Amino acid sequence: VTNGNIVFAEYGKTAQLSQGNSILDAAKKVDIKISAVCGGHGLCGKCRVVVKEGAQYLEGVSRLESMSLSREELAEGYRLACCALFNRGGTTLVEVPPESRVEQQRLLVAGIETAVSKNPSVKKLLVHLSKSSLENVKSDAELLLEGLAQRGQPTFVRIGYEALTQMPIAIREGDWSVTVTLRDDQEVICVEPGDTTKRVYGLAVDVGSTKIAAYLLDLNEGKVVATASAPNPQIPFGEDIISRVSYASKGEKNLKQLQGVVIACINKLLLDACEAAGVNISDVYDAVLVGNTVMHHIFLGISPRFVALSPYPPAISSSTTVRAKDIGLKMNPAANVYVPPNVAGFVGADAVADVLATEIYKSKSLSIMIDVGTNTEIVLGNAQRTISCSCASGPAFEGGHIEFGMRAEPGAIENVYVDPSNLEPGFKTVGDERPRGVCGSGIVDAVAAMLKSGIINKYGLINTKLNSGRIRTQGVPQYVLSWKEENDVGYDIAVTQRDVQEIQLAKAAIYSGATILMKHLSVEAREIQKVFLAGAFGTYVDPQSAVMVGMYPDVPLERVQFVGNAAGSGARMALLSRQVRESSERTVRGIGYVELAADPSFQREFTEALQLPHKDLTRFPTVAQLLNKDRSGSVD
Amino acid sequence: VTNGNIVFAEYGKTAQLSQGNSILDAAKKVDIKISAVCGGHGLCGKCRVVVKEGAQYLEGVSRLESMSLSREELAEGYRLACCALFNRGGTTLVEVPPESRVEQQRLLVAGIETAVSKNPSVKKLLVHLSKSSLENVKSDAELLLEGLAQRGQPTFVRIGYEALTQMPIAIREGDWSVTVTLRDDQEVICVEPGDTTKRVYGLAVDVGSTKIAAYLLDLNEGKVVATASAPNPQIPFGEDIISRVSYASKGEKNLKQLQGVVIACINKLLLDACEAAGVNISDVYDAVLVGNTVMHHIFLGISPRFVALSPYPPAISSSTTVRAKDIGLKMNPAANVYVPPNVAGFVGADAVADVLATEIYKSKSLSIMIDVGTNTEIVLGNAQRTISCSCASGPAFEGGHIEFGMRAEPGAIENVYVDPSNLEPGFKTVGDERPRGVCGSGIVDAVAAMLKSGIINKYGLINTKLNSGRIRTQGVPQYVLSWKEENDVGYDIAVTQRDVQEIQLAKAAIYSGATILMKHLSVEAREIQKVFLAGAFGTYVDPQSAVMVGMYPDVPLERVQFVGNAAGSGARMALLSRQVRESSERTVRGIGYVELAADPSFQREFTEALQLPHKDLTRFPTVAQLLNKDRSGSVD
Repeated sequence: VTNGNIVFAEYGKTAQLSQGNSILDAAKKVDIKISAVCGGHGLCGKCRVVVKEGAQYLEGVSRLESMSLSREELAEGYRLACCALFNRGGTTLVEVPPESRVEQQRLLVAGIETAVSKNPSVKKLLVHLSKSSLENVKSDAELLLEGLAQRGQPTFVRIGYEALTQMPIAIREGDWSVTVTLRDDQEVICVEPGDTTKRVYGLAVDVGSTKIAAYLLDLNEGKVVATASAPNPQIPFGEDIISRVSYASKGEKNLKQLQGVVIACINKLLLDACEAAGVNISDVYDAVLVGNTVMHHIFLGISPRFVALSPYPPAISSSTTVRAKDIGLKMNPAANVYVPPNVAGFVGADAVADVLATEIYKSKSLSIMIDVGTNTEIVLGNAQRTISCSCASGPAFEGGHIEFGMRAEPGAIENVYVDPSNLEPGFKTVGDERPRGVCGSGIVDAVAAMLKSGIINKYGLINTKLNSGRIRTQGVPQYVLSWKEENDVGYDIAVTQRDVQEIQLAKAAIYSGATILMKHLSVEAREIQKVFLAGAFGTYVDPQSAVMVGMYPDVPLERVQFVGNAAGSGARMALLSRQVRESSERTVRGIGYVELAADPSFQREFTEALQLPHKDLTRFPTVAQLLNKDRSGSVD
Repeated sequence: VTNGNIVFAEYGKTAQLSQGNSILDAAKKVDIKISAVCGGHGLCGKCRVVVKEGAQYLEGVSRLESMSLSREELAEGYRLACCALFNRGGTTLVEVPPESRVEQQRLLVAGIETAVSKNPSVKKLLVHLSKSSLENVKSDAELLLEGLAQRGQPTFVRIGYEALTQMPIAIREGDWSVTVTLRDDQEVICVEPGDTTKRVYGLAVDVGSTKIAAYLLDLNEGKVVATASAPNPQIPFGEDIISRVSYASKGEKNLKQLQGVVIACINKLLLDACEAAGVNISDVYDAVLVGNTVMHHIFLGISPRFVALSPYPPAISSSTTVRAKDIGLKMNPAANVYVPPNVAGFVGADAVADVLATEIYKSKSLSIMIDVGTNTEIVLGNAQRTISCSCASGPAFEGGHIEFGMRAEPGAIENVYVDPSNLEPGFKTVGDERPRGVCGSGIVDAVAAMLKSGIINKYGLINTKLNSGRIRTQGVPQYVLSWKEENDVGYDIAVTQRDVQEIQLAKAAIYSGATILMKHLSVEAREIQKVFLAGAFGTYVDPQSAVMVGMYPDVPLERVQFVGNAAGSGARMALLSRQVRESSERTVRGIGYVELAADPSFQREFTEALQLPHKDLTRFPTVAQLLNKDRSGSVD
């Protein structure tokens, strides 16, 4: 028994190993969680790691690994953690890429943290006032502005209405020392007795059509002090955006109702976050909210009706600032809500926040950002030029329109592999509970695995001639993942022919959108240095499965970065920095918008992209290679 | 019977007369109402007119006239209309000065009309939009701003929240033609379908501590379309300002209550005015409100507590703009309320409005403005320098603290004369109803008449030795105006020794304030070219009686101008003109403030001014002359 070390540099952890142990074993020893759906049998291909140094202490690449990994990946040191066995004494340096990290994936939902120089719209200053005398009477306001001028504030500061009503009493209660809350160095919005400068908070909110996430930030420290989230309470009024638009368009009352439930939800989240962090609601002085254009409109009480009618114009494409109390948000009565600009009817403030968080618009190299949802926003570009579009990708990636589809809740099958030797499936569920259905990442994984194992062909058709009890041909052809005897729902959970078609339609929408943007900028897939996958689905999906079905351009996997709820990240950045708000305004003016429906090549691109991964396999060299490895010319 | 003509030039009327008819008879013939309390017996001296031409056709000056009019006045052609009898054929040109006009006085309550070049804060524009296409999608806001730019509006216009929510539907309902309401050429506050440019209104409000007056103006035409007024509903919480401050200072709830009743009252007045003029409340887009500093603070919900505590600072001395809906005013939801600046704790936005209306700050010659109320604001100056003070004149001029005092309501004795031959009184009541009490102008008139007839001496003491049943000595000495048999109230209505003292205190406060301002500017009474008497009391009082008791400096009566509710006039001017608002800001910075309590000479000035008209009779040459005429050295 020879001992050796496996060093997981990013985690700062080292595991001692004996001959025959795998890297997966090493990871388990030091409590690092690596995806391994098949339980470490080399079948699912999810436990990819990169050996950076000391490859000579491991055994050679196994047959299973060479089937799961492309030539380029193998050359770069990629291995499957379950297959890479320790051989002899020495130290091996291993990197776990984001797509293989279980913990990391969950955390990423919070969104990437992009550093901003802290300069929030709202700040507090302690000001000492001189008293006025009978001989030289000055108004309280004059004394306050004199005090502010002594603190270096400009003299054109105006005093807001709420501050005006607080000022006279606060000045005397504080014995001529008051804390002044300033907005944008221009307006006094609050006057409090004594020193309360430590208590200044802000709220960042991402209103997704499915989920609302709220982040409470300490504006002095620039840090999140509490988060809270809840399902979007508009769901009962319409699962998808269009049906909510339709409901809201039926009258002023309906619109107010949809607005009301969202505001009530945000108020509840703010209350929860404040309670969790021990913050007083009146010390929350600022808010930033992002959402797609329809969520944006409904939140503000603007009819979203015309957003859904050609040519799909948003009511406003510049940023909007409204008073929190005007829309019923319960925080400090003088607080404003800043809503970043919309690019177009279907590229909203949330996509702008994605761009802010990923800083595409600052980078020299070409990036693409894909925020996957029922509508998928894509932004392609760099510091020179940025272009965007929206794809009607439908609800399949969120488990919608899928026979046994469900949200990514406990019991949802989220990872799937198929053993090519016997076409038997393996899967992992959210929370490792007994299976109840299939969520978005699960269905993509399943389709990729079915393609890889030849259960479906490039047209997405299930090969009903294959010899497997899992493939059923009565009624709609389907592939059974879980027999009813193995689960609690009382029926077989399967992937149907229609489910595969839904995925094909959804991924074709995204891929053809990305392709048309690339055409507009005259760039090719290989020039893309970074693929940002945003949104909950984008975070949980296996990037290799996604590229296998042809969801986005075939780029080396290390260029794919999960940015989770990047919209929330962008909202937090805008909350912390006036510069970010200003650049959002400039950025949006610079973001081109392509209306896919008006693009002459859209129909052809879409049709070609319906195939798996694509009609033109030269666009997916990595996938072509893997398919060739797996399938010895079985289908097509 | 010789016929002749009396021409009343200002009225454009001519009356034919026979020998022996008086000018008063002539006026009655052509329906011109001239004050004549004594019924035309030459006793009250209220029917003063000026004969400009054709004096030779009248009989000579009678003994009664020479007793009522000063030498200077006689030289200028002043006559009493009831005494000036027509003698022989010819045309006589007669002028009726404001103080003698019954109708005119009533009208003047509305306040003087000072011309302003119309440039209201709010205006409407009809804008035609171009539609956007799929190839070049533009947001509704972009299209609207493009349309505004084509109408010559600057491109930095922002779209307010309410307008944003109206815009998408208004654009389609108006088939791409909308009426845009702009504020200060900077902000779109309303978007309506089609052409509504004719419907744009504003509200000017004067919140007096006693009465609230509201004026609804057509902002296109610059004209008042309806007015409404009501007693200030705060009266039950405190008759005078200080007791209201005291009530409001007891807690946030009390302040909100006082604010609430005023706002509710203004809402009612606006509703009444809108109904009267057939105007929709949502077409009222702007408001200007004036009031003294305490009314200003309470209206805005600012604690007035410290205004009443030395050194009496106002919370704010610059102008304030708040959203109407923030304080509960029910007009267009995007409307603002502009409140002019305050000069000091007791020289408020109403005094500033007085200054705007009288244009003291623009004039080369020296003027004094006296806005008589419980607190009397005085402003003295010209274009070079302006100075102000506030006098605690108390409620006597409004009938308060007077034994049989009442407001100037029907039945209130408003004019009094005393027949020097028998010390019998005569009076006129408001509405010519049976007497119920004495109002402010009545009590000043009574004191002046009592002084003139020797019933009181210069110390204000009633001469109880005089032989008249009207003078009672049991209890507090008093002079009976109306026996209970002659009225409906069931008791005698009298002027008591204490009432006289109240008037002495009140007029001394005003006169000493005016004197101290004159000292500060190193000017003398004779240099004052114009005395503006503002406020309801100032309008109804007999200026000769007022000067007789020594209320303000002894200047020729023709220099006295009644400006009625000048504060309301100033509010209307600020509603119609952004320039007036700007100059109000500049003006206030230029208005000096003298705190009388801190002036070393105040106590002496006040004490000397307690005498009737003043300890130093050389300051009141006209009055001295009249007193000498009337009283043959009878008292003191």
